[in-house]
Amino acid sequence: MKNAVSARLSERTAEEVANTIYKPGMQAFSDEAFTDMCRLNQAHLVMLSECGLVSQEVATGLAKALLQAQREGKEAVRLDPQFEDPYFAFENRLSEIAGPKLTGWIHIGRSRNDIGATLDRLHARALCLRILEQLGKARKACLTSAEQHAETIMPGYTHLQPAQPITFGYYLTNVAAALQRDYDRIAATYARINLASLGAAALAGTSFAINRQRTAELLGFDGIVEPCLDAVASRDFVTELLWAITAMSTLLSRVAQDLYTFCTHEFSAIEFPDRVAGTSSIMPQKKNPLMLEYFRASSGRSIGALTSVLASVKGSNYSIGLDSVREGIADAWSALDQVVDSLDLLRLVFETAKPNAELLLQRCRTNFSTATDLADGLVRQAGLSFREAHHVVGGAVQIALNEGIGASDITADLVNRSAQAVVGYNLAIDDAFIQACLDPVRAVAARTTAGGTAPSEVRRVLEEQRQRLIANRAELARRVAQVEEAQKRLEAGMTALT
Amino acid sequence: MKNAVSARLSERTAEEVANTIYKPGMQAFSDEAFTDMCRLNQAHLVMLSECGLVSQEVATGLAKALLQAQREGKEAVRLDPQFEDPYFAFENRLSEIAGPKLTGWIHIGRSRNDIGATLDRLHARALCLRILEQLGKARKACLTSAEQHAETIMPGYTHLQPAQPITFGYYLTNVAAALQRDYDRIAATYARINLASLGAAALAGTSFAINRQRTAELLGFDGIVEPCLDAVASRDFVTELLWAITAMSTLLSRVAQDLYTFCTHEFSAIEFPDRVAGTSSIMPQKKNPLMLEYFRASSGRSIGALTSVLASVKGSNYSIGLDSVREGIADAWSALDQVVDSLDLLRLVFETAKPNAELLLQRCRTNFSTATDLADGLVRQAGLSFREAHHVVGGAVQIALNEGIGASDITADLVNRSAQAVVGYNLAIDDAFIQACLDPVRAVAARTTAGGTAPSEVRRVLEEQRQRLIANRAELARRVAQVEEAQKRLEAGMTALT
Amino acid sequence: MKNAVSARLSERTAEEVANTIYKPGMQAFSDEAFTDMCRLNQAHLVMLSECGLVSQEVATGLAKALLQAQREGKEAVRLDPQFEDPYFAFENRLSEIAGPKLTGWIHIGRSRNDIGATLDRLHARALCLRILEQLGKARKACLTSAEQHAETIMPGYTHLQPAQPITFGYYLTNVAAALQRDYDRIAATYARINLASLGAAALAGTSFAINRQRTAELLGFDGIVEPCLDAVASRDFVTELLWAITAMSTLLSRVAQDLYTFCTHEFSAIEFPDRVAGTSSIMPQKKNPLMLEYFRASSGRSIGALTSVLASVKGSNYSIGLDSVREGIADAWSALDQVVDSLDLLRLVFETAKPNAELLLQRCRTNFSTATDLADGLVRQAGLSFREAHHVVGGAVQIALNEGIGASDITADLVNRSAQAVVGYNLAIDDAFIQACLDPVRAVAARTTAGGTAPSEVRRVLEEQRQRLIANRAELARRVAQVEEAQKRLEAGMTALT
Amino acid sequence: MKNAVSARLSERTAEEVANTIYKPGMQAFSDEAFTDMCRLNQAHLVMLSECGLVSQEVATGLAKALLQAQREGKEAVRLDPQFEDPYFAFENRLSEIAGPKLTGWIHIGRSRNDIGATLDRLHARALCLRILEQLGKARKACLTSAEQHAETIMPGYTHLQPAQPITFGYYLTNVAAALQRDYDRIAATYARINLASLGAAALAGTSFAINRQRTAELLGFDGIVEPCLDAVASRDFVTELLWAITAMSTLLSRVAQDLYTFCTHEFSAIEFPDRVAGTSSIMPQKKNPLMLEYFRASSGRSIGALTSVLASVKGSNYSIGLDSVREGIADAWSALDQVVDSLDLLRLVFETAKPNAELLLQRCRTNFSTATDLADGLVRQAGLSFREAHHVVGGAVQIALNEGIGASDITADLVNRSAQAVVGYNLAIDDAFIQACLDPVRAVAARTTAGGTAPSEVRRVLEEQRQRLIANRAELARRVAQVEEAQKRLEAGMTALT
Repeated sequence: MKNAVSARLSERTAEEVANTIYKPGMQAFSDEAFTDMCRLNQAHLVMLSECGLVSQEVATGLAKALLQAQREGKEAVRLDPQFEDPYFAFENRLSEIAGPKLTGWIHIGRSRNDIGATLDRLHARALCLRILEQLGKARKACLTSAEQHAETIMPGYTHLQPAQPITFGYYLTNVAAALQRDYDRIAATYARINLASLGAAALAGTSFAINRQRTAELLGFDGIVEPCLDAVASRDFVTELLWAITAMSTLLSRVAQDLYTFCTHEFSAIEFPDRVAGTSSIMPQKKNPLMLEYFRASSGRSIGALTSVLASVKGSNYSIGLDSVREGIADAWSALDQVVDSLDLLRLVFETAKPNAELLLQRCRTNFSTATDLADGLVRQAGLSFREAHHVVGGAVQIALNEGIGASDITADLVNRSAQAVVGYNLAIDDAFIQACLDPVRAVAARTTAGGTAPSEVRRVLEEQRQRLIANRAELARRVAQVEEAQKRLEAGMTALT
Repeated sequence: MKNAVSARLSERTAEEVANTIYKPGMQAFSDEAFTDMCRLNQAHLVMLSECGLVSQEVATGLAKALLQAQREGKEAVRLDPQFEDPYFAFENRLSEIAGPKLTGWIHIGRSRNDIGATLDRLHARALCLRILEQLGKARKACLTSAEQHAETIMPGYTHLQPAQPITFGYYLTNVAAALQRDYDRIAATYARINLASLGAAALAGTSFAINRQRTAELLGFDGIVEPCLDAVASRDFVTELLWAITAMSTLLSRVAQDLYTFCTHEFSAIEFPDRVAGTSSIMPQKKNPLMLEYFRASSGRSIGALTSVLASVKGSNYSIGLDSVREGIADAWSALDQVVDSLDLLRLVFETAKPNAELLLQRCRTNFSTATDLADGLVRQAGLSFREAHHVVGGAVQIALNEGIGASDITADLVNRSAQAVVGYNLAIDDAFIQACLDPVRAVAARTTAGGTAPSEVRRVLEEQRQRLIANRAELARRVAQVEEAQKRLEAGMTALT
Repeated sequence: MKNAVSARLSERTAEEVANTIYKPGMQAFSDEAFTDMCRLNQAHLVMLSECGLVSQEVATGLAKALLQAQREGKEAVRLDPQFEDPYFAFENRLSEIAGPKLTGWIHIGRSRNDIGATLDRLHARALCLRILEQLGKARKACLTSAEQHAETIMPGYTHLQPAQPITFGYYLTNVAAALQRDYDRIAATYARINLASLGAAALAGTSFAINRQRTAELLGFDGIVEPCLDAVASRDFVTELLWAITAMSTLLSRVAQDLYTFCTHEFSAIEFPDRVAGTSSIMPQKKNPLMLEYFRASSGRSIGALTSVLASVKGSNYSIGLDSVREGIADAWSALDQVVDSLDLLRLVFETAKPNAELLLQRCRTNFSTATDLADGLVRQAGLSFREAHHVVGGAVQIALNEGIGASDITADLVNRSAQAVVGYNLAIDDAFIQACLDPVRAVAARTTAGGTAPSEVRRVLEEQRQRLIANRAELARRVAQVEEAQKRLEAGMTALT
Repeated sequence: MKNAVSARLSERTAEEVANTIYKPGMQAFSDEAFTDMCRLNQAHLVMLSECGLVSQEVATGLAKALLQAQREGKEAVRLDPQFEDPYFAFENRLSEIAGPKLTGWIHIGRSRNDIGATLDRLHARALCLRILEQLGKARKACLTSAEQHAETIMPGYTHLQPAQPITFGYYLTNVAAALQRDYDRIAATYARINLASLGAAALAGTSFAINRQRTAELLGFDGIVEPCLDAVASRDFVTELLWAITAMSTLLSRVAQDLYTFCTHEFSAIEFPDRVAGTSSIMPQKKNPLMLEYFRASSGRSIGALTSVLASVKGSNYSIGLDSVREGIADAWSALDQVVDSLDLLRLVFETAKPNAELLLQRCRTNFSTATDLADGLVRQAGLSFREAHHVVGGAVQIALNEGIGASDITADLVNRSAQAVVGYNLAIDDAFIQACLDPVRAVAARTTAGGTAPSEVRRVLEEQRQRLIANRAELARRVAQVEEAQKRLEAGMTALT
């Protein structure tokens, strides 16, 4: 044959095609992918043998060859682009070991299409489990710091302007709540990932009486993707996982955005240790929070990868094609790889961010962020409707700013000057009342309604979050165990053949 | 006050700000949004009254004003951009009805932030239910046509080249399977959408002893978003819904891509009636499948909207801001609106696409798409390993093409010429065997393994799909009823107040 | 005819198609689009008459009808979706005025395809000119403020940590330089926009002896797009304009990001007047820089629109289609509309941002941002190599931080303690030397190399920028005049016909 | 020092930071980047020496060390992530050669910030030149094939339905015209790429009296980026180049989309040789046009990369940061690398696509695609207005389809049956007139207006395109020469030092 893999094609594949299209696929064939390829072929063989589709002799011969190939590793596989893709290179390796005649039996009732889909599913499964594992650790670090700082007062912001006092623990509890949703979304993809495409063959199934459930089971899948065209043409399980981590990265970028501002010289709200900082080649005083910029960039890259995949796939036909299943989804894999590392970094961020408690409390006393509490107080104490109270306090703040009076120096008198302008009469309030209303510690403690800032409420929510994390980790462990058990079944099946 | 809504700001809002930032928000205040605004305020009032946070007199006065405002409709609301947003315009409307003093009580224990988040949740909920309803109808049309064409043979393609014969019903069954996943993803967003943010106030909760669960219940929510910063700062429920419809639109673009090709003059594989076609102002013979191009474009727009939202939100702080909750997610709403219409069109596509059965069967007989069946046959009949058989048939196809022999004219002799070259001997086959292997009807029927093309298997899978659709619709009806019941409770609560 | 526009189609267009596909196009037919439609038809008629392709009588009749239609305005056009698009609705309007027989002559030698492409070009041209006009004003405001603050010292940042002192004028000069590139990119699109597609007909040109150059000239175009398929199938002039404003919006988002941080309570580096700020419904003290969030969001939306267009168009065939020329590029138009408003806002931002000069100077004295100047000084004064000096100063900063010594209290002694550790000997320096090195005013003034912070250098660069702005505006005026002159020629041509 | 590069930081960089953030940057340090790093340092040294900022002795020592480092190559550089980035690793290499004292002088008047920006500019410049070179070759192949097939009739499509006959040469001429615009856009980026940032130092320039123009000149730049913050904080030259290739890839995806359809079994409009096709592991007859899918996928990836960069950068501050200049633009570099290879493939596509002339001509005779010519004919011959003629022919086509009459069998009689229905009278036409109008060869030849299908007009346009290609290549050669000459000047400068 002039073509390395087809008797139908009368020419050797052009170098431009081999280099541009096939070589990257060969280069991406990792050790992990090789192991998956070995197992997939083993599972297929065990099933073929059980279904009587190959003779005992063929089964034994192929089983030995497969085990030898696995033992000798990826390095022994000639990843020549002329073979088009790693599967043909792997079949060639088997052929070197067992000869072409025997090797020829391995491809009964299947195609590269269902092999490729199944390898992608094994890969996505491994990534999904790894991401959940790392994310669990990061969430734990977040909860630990939140617990520690449930009473560390700091300004809460809207539009990055002082809004109302909160605590650093409260802030982190909110982050943890959002991360919980992200975890749930990532975990929900598993059910759609962990299904086998094997046996769908090219697009139509096969006329050989194979047992698709059996290979699925030997590879640790929960079931099969039934209609066979869908099984080979769809990679939405990859896109969905990519989406879920992109949603998470969007949150992390926002949190990084906050922390980046909080650790400026001007805010000095939190501090990081020197070991997580970068420096400058020219400015000797520099300590730069690169790891926070990393999350902002990483989120952009994840959005880009998602766009890449969607834009490619949406232009493809609903069938197998480079744009629907390989080149078109390539950017998903690199984005997913990156996220594993970045979660390690996230954990470190939660572990090392330290609030500057004294300064923050002091700031809450002077930045007018308890103005709402004063308005609320006026409703309760002076019988104003809320909007009246709101305008009275707004007017008072304006007076204070114009006259250079600090938030902690606001008096009943000053408030009444505003009240006169707004409602036309003096309110029955005194300076002690004003001071009490303006106290940030009291303000934080007063918000005891569901999800509020009061330390007791924060601790209650934290306890809920801890329980959910424990449940999440148990479920994750169960999934990992299921994959490992399947692996043992597969090894037993192979042993039985040899 | 010089500023329309704040005693703190000493200037009227600049026209550039009002026009660019506030006006679009006012213009987007739809009748539906107005109704939601009315209900939200009613629920809040009922709760305030129940919690004793307003007097009986205030409650009754506000209840009457709210009902009057609702009766008189959106047209009575002065949507002046100087009010910043629809909420302040609505409060102003109440003030016109009930006077500022009384109206001032309505805003106890809340903020525009939690109001805005809750309105977004009501909106997203309505869209989600509507999309599920329309998608259910489109799926039904798909299944009906699939059933009808379970035996309508047509070429199956990979890389848009003839691969193996399938049926049009089989094709649609695969589409239906993929659409099922899309439905599941969309439906799964509901649990994260249907939670109330109300009572989270600005970002920290409130010191008034409100009952967040009660307002949630009165508005038909399943529960509340607990930590309050997260409740106002996060719109990932919108992004998630947008993602889910983008995933679906990606599939629809691929299917449209197929049908677009299938209905060309050259393929003539399917035909659409004149009523779904567009024409030309210059070319009198024209009949253009615009509705298929629509799905390709619509998918691109959905990807763009998703990118818009992600890129905006990822740059925002983890708090309330134009970029995190309003301007930054604006493109999501228009994309979601569009998808409802487009699902109507999808149903029409499934209802009207008619395959050209005779031509398609004939084509399967001549396009070599049963070559795999011949190879499979050689494995069974002639004891070749699959790879050997594959090369023998590949060689035979090349001979046929070179000699201008059609697929249906391949003989045992011709195959043996190739066998000689590949394996070096003649196979024990005859012309009848060859003809049987090459028959597309037999080939389709032979694929009886799980998810294969055999009509019986297609019908089995279809039955499963129908059952899942029935279950989906029941669940949807349950959700709709829950919202309607809450609405009745709310009306009863308002009646009790007045 | 059962179909409103085609004798070939035997059915009325389905409602689902009309509503989903045609109605939005009808709704988007603006007054401006109507005017363009009138002019385009007038130019075509003048040319047809000049080329002798219609009789004098037909020309006069059509000319009168066209002028009447223009006079009576868009409201008289029945925008029924059954007409498919505004052109057919317009032709129907002509028909109402002049009867079908006469009206039938207007469509000689053209198609909706080249009409649509030309209308898009007229629209893009108008937007491009408007954007350049507004951007010119914003740049002017930037330069004016830069000039004013050429000596207003402030910290310069890298990684948002104090890096080296700069001036606010220097900061704005850099922004102006980047905006100049954006202006250049936007202006460069004009040459590819301002070409006519008219006369390309459906995709292949026409057999009528029309004069494409003549219609181009009458509509103010610089020339024609030659090969006719490209002329109707390509909208890259829209995408290119969208790209150019997206690039600009990316810059504006970054600048907004800076200013957003600078105007926080904690930085207090710049202040905005109350009239550009938003407020809160609950927090009386609030003053929120919404307009800066607007730029961050607006940039995300622009990126989304660009993605939308690219993803749609890339999936289309290289010909006319909904996805290549209409639905597929729809998001570009709304993004371009938005940018005009946002540039008005940008000008306001430049006009109103006021630096807090005293505080900023004070901050530069204490935040170690002149550490580089000390290192540079040690190279010159003490003969250290730069890396040695860098480490000596780095060590000194660490000592100061550990011992709570402020930047302005660093002494020669302290530096020598570090020098001992780094190079092993004392340097020939004294406290006066140290103080001089650490002075931010001196540091800023010392950077006189090209593009440096020295006020003299900033003013030199500003003068260059002003000259380029003047040249840009002259060029813009020239282009506007060219369009207006063509318009006069067209009116004269029409007058001659009637 | 505990930190590898800073005396200010008291801790070794954490492994999570080193692995996630610094390691990828080290791994991306290619041989080409190493060469650029060597040259950049050489140019800086030559300038420092000329400006008298280092002593003769230092200059000679450093020059020798730099040349030795270059000779010994990248392999000798210890790319330890603890060094943060390749520059510090390179400085460390110099230090190993020349000792820290001497090496310490090299970093006068600069920073990693301007080094990084300049390296990015050198890289972008090399990529830009390479892309232009390859694109020129692909355009040449396109023009050659267009010339060859200027008379090869084929159906032209709109909405992928037969529209009007064109030629394959005409189709390619249009593609070439669009590619010309892409070339122009890519070439236009060069002026903004080829400017030096060196000497901008950290963000503010330097107090050392360096000569920025001189280093620019020694590195072959056309000039410098003046204000120094902009010079280090902006990478819009990368984004702009990425945009330009994305615009091109969008076109290539559309052309691939066409060719992909044209080479289906059903269209059989064009054919590719076996050497550019892929095959199947299971279907022996397969010949798959993977290289066309590659262009569709590649376009999606380019859009994704553009989104990635824009989304990252737009969230960054207007200064140096990981998200503005490194991690945030990383996806641009890989996309740009890919495009070089893909242009090689594009050339191959143009060289190998062969139309099936006979079949295509035959198809034009039967697919009603000359209906417009018949309508045009009726205008000229029978005095109908165009819209009347359009409806008459539309009606005739409908009659023909209903009665199963082929396009070539339409008679004057049949047309008059339609004319009766539309205009109410018989037209003065005969069968010979009808046949002449319907002849595709005549139809193609008749479109002689500017940019039309007539072979003579196609050849005229092709000649223009060839002339522009020649001019483009001359300009490209000039730019390449300029870079090479600078390189010689730099080598001379180094020789003078040693």
